[in-house]
Amino acid sequence: MKLKLSALAILLSAATIAMAQDSLTIRKIYDEALVNGKSYENLRYLCKNIGARLSGSPNAQKAVEWSKKLMESYGFDHVFLQEVMVPHWVRGSKEEAYIIDGKNKIPVPVAALGMSVATPKDGLTADIIEVHSLKQLDTLGEAGIKGKIVFFNRPFDARYIETLRAYGTAGDQRNMGPAAAAKYGAVGVIVRSLTESLDNYPHTGATRYDPTGNNIPAAAISTIAANELSNLLKQKSGSIKFSFKQSSYHLPDTLSYNVVGELIGTENPNKFITVGGHLDSWDLAEGAHDDGTGVMGALEAVRLLKVLGYKPKNTIRVVFFINEENGDKGGLKYAELAAANKEQHIAAIETDLGGFTPRGFGFTGLSSEQLQNLTPWKKLFEPYGSDHLVAGGGGSDIGPLKEKSPGIILIGLSPDSQRYFDVHHSANDVFENVNKRELELGAASMSALIYLIDQHGFN
Amino acid sequence: MKLKLSALAILLSAATIAMAQDSLTIRKIYDEALVNGKSYENLRYLCKNIGARLSGSPNAQKAVEWSKKLMESYGFDHVFLQEVMVPHWVRGSKEEAYIIDGKNKIPVPVAALGMSVATPKDGLTADIIEVHSLKQLDTLGEAGIKGKIVFFNRPFDARYIETLRAYGTAGDQRNMGPAAAAKYGAVGVIVRSLTESLDNYPHTGATRYDPTGNNIPAAAISTIAANELSNLLKQKSGSIKFSFKQSSYHLPDTLSYNVVGELIGTENPNKFITVGGHLDSWDLAEGAHDDGTGVMGALEAVRLLKVLGYKPKNTIRVVFFINEENGDKGGLKYAELAAANKEQHIAAIETDLGGFTPRGFGFTGLSSEQLQNLTPWKKLFEPYGSDHLVAGGGGSDIGPLKEKSPGIILIGLSPDSQRYFDVHHSANDVFENVNKRELELGAASMSALIYLIDQHGFN
Repeated sequence: MKLKLSALAILLSAATIAMAQDSLTIRKIYDEALVNGKSYENLRYLCKNIGARLSGSPNAQKAVEWSKKLMESYGFDHVFLQEVMVPHWVRGSKEEAYIIDGKNKIPVPVAALGMSVATPKDGLTADIIEVHSLKQLDTLGEAGIKGKIVFFNRPFDARYIETLRAYGTAGDQRNMGPAAAAKYGAVGVIVRSLTESLDNYPHTGATRYDPTGNNIPAAAISTIAANELSNLLKQKSGSIKFSFKQSSYHLPDTLSYNVVGELIGTENPNKFITVGGHLDSWDLAEGAHDDGTGVMGALEAVRLLKVLGYKPKNTIRVVFFINEENGDKGGLKYAELAAANKEQHIAAIETDLGGFTPRGFGFTGLSSEQLQNLTPWKKLFEPYGSDHLVAGGGGSDIGPLKEKSPGIILIGLSPDSQRYFDVHHSANDVFENVNKRELELGAASMSALIYLIDQHGFN
Repeated sequence: MKLKLSALAILLSAATIAMAQDSLTIRKIYDEALVNGKSYENLRYLCKNIGARLSGSPNAQKAVEWSKKLMESYGFDHVFLQEVMVPHWVRGSKEEAYIIDGKNKIPVPVAALGMSVATPKDGLTADIIEVHSLKQLDTLGEAGIKGKIVFFNRPFDARYIETLRAYGTAGDQRNMGPAAAAKYGAVGVIVRSLTESLDNYPHTGATRYDPTGNNIPAAAISTIAANELSNLLKQKSGSIKFSFKQSSYHLPDTLSYNVVGELIGTENPNKFITVGGHLDSWDLAEGAHDDGTGVMGALEAVRLLKVLGYKPKNTIRVVFFINEENGDKGGLKYAELAAANKEQHIAAIETDLGGFTPRGFGFTGLSSEQLQNLTPWKKLFEPYGSDHLVAGGGGSDIGPLKEKSPGIILIGLSPDSQRYFDVHHSANDVFENVNKRELELGAASMSALIYLIDQHGFN
């Protein structure tokens, strides 16, 4: 009995020592991020010297080249590009739109949805009908829809505490609304911007046409204008028309790249822990929160380990995925190459919800027992407020790894979500709306998590 | 044994039912705040239609009158004012300041510290010496300081995760620096703005003179200018002078008011739960986060209970304290009247750290066992992310209640702290820097906590 107790005591104290060591390393990671962090100035460069970088655009190529150089400057073991063909959609001239109330033409701010076709050259004018769901289209049928513009106007449900859930439940209007409306003969679609904030900015984002259906032009309208349009439709049902003009078009697919940097594992060079965000952005602003903070935070997470002299057991990779916004081609390519190269992926962390104060991480692939086993990590994250370790997490860039790398744990960084959709996909997504410390805390959180996974794996 | 188990089962299920009821009520509170919340539009009015409201100013009086009407419009049982004499300090003309580098006069942004005296009418020009601590003054002594301007330039320590701690450790320079420098014959003091962000805004705040000492003029300098000045002093030690001009002055103390609204307790009308923030603000901007969000959040917390038809057991009070920024007279008066009127105070919640996403509450006066007993409340707050219930909390307005109302639990709302000192006491503290949902979540959190305290007290 005595012996057993001693053995237990030794085991316990070994665990305590390991935890104290982890605690010290994590403290160093945060200190370095907060005192000597590079993410904020890197983000400034990406936003102000490169700017918007939609897939296929010259700016996206500039961003690829600059990112590769930046990774090289940090002395990572490998820096390389992964070739991938991406869609090349172009917005064309600035859109115009009007509510037509008899002789009164009220200009309203709209922006073509990503991947949308153009209107006829002189614009499209038609009756407009407001709906709140895709189901409602079935009720209205061709009789109610044919020849009209469909106006999807279901707002965010403010009651969700996490705004991402409100986005999730309102998103079908933008993603599938145009395809669904086209089936009933609609000639165009206007979608209420996917944000809770009342502002004058149209928030764009991709729509998906039915490959066998009719492609009709579709645009986002600002929430303030959406309310105005809705009010007018209530007051003057039947007499309101809508007119919009956009000249968006597709060019042939373009060669582009994921940008990858690696610290080679000292014990398991063919086992990988990936951290990444997407380098491409929408074209309306600087893609600061979406997803400049993601790529610059992910890079910083690995730089922090490197600069602290940490020698990882497994290979740590930072990936700047290309084409998340309108095709997901970069994420698909990364998973395809991982399988082709017989890489073993332990975990992948995605950061694509803005550079706000981190609250924790969501995990996909852990059993509830394994999730329970993260309690010591939760304790380690508590002093940093990033201790909300819950089931469910990932993102569209790392998602394809699930199928291609069985056993992988997919992880999403969970920043505070309240401000994300204020700027998301709009002209408001600029560097000035990023807080330096919030970004740095996110980078440090990811770095600490990579360290813990590399040291301990998932038990 | 069987009987005992059944009794336990009944007790447990009663607890479970109570918790389910609490959970439902709290959900309703959050829904109402997020869907029909009034705090954001009230804040807009306070910021845009009234604006800066330093104690003693006509605007502070406007704010008192409007706040009283606003509370009355919500149908609270009582709305009343508490008379209190407050200091009346006036900034005077916009300050001017220059780094003098030989013939080169470099203009820099400064703002007089609150309660500071003026410089001579034509300004004050002298040699300037940089120090990093009050202790350093003792080392330099009169020989090093007499006749000079002392420049306190110790920056925020970025390593603190909670920025309030960085503020706490840097704050002595502003609070006590001028009094300490005056002892050694300094003729003026310039203090690095108490913020981590590098910006061009001086961040003001009160300084405290030694009543028996010499009052020398003191001003805050922007962090960017502080760095510039420091660099020049390093390069050209001995040849740099500094010049500043400010015309601040004191008028006689002025009659002002705390504004109080009450829902009378159905069981214990003489037992009180207070929630409040301060109505006064600095004069450089709109006092949006400091403390417009506090008063409007506190008011909303009580409005939510009222509008949901909740009948409190104890009296619930919202208090808009006056004069937190440069005197604390409102908080002192409130505690004095509480004692004089023999009120029994159960708890007071202060919100004065900005209207950012709430993370939880800090409690002063609870034993560690009592704090442990809050675990069920922690669970109730988890879905709202406001579940960080820790020891230590309060604020300077409710602080005086501790002595005057023995047994009271003092509570501080803990919002995310990363952005607070970006705006704090500067021209940047405007309505546009407040996020609607963050403010609403804070109000709902306080409302839910008041409900729980009113229902269950502290065990």
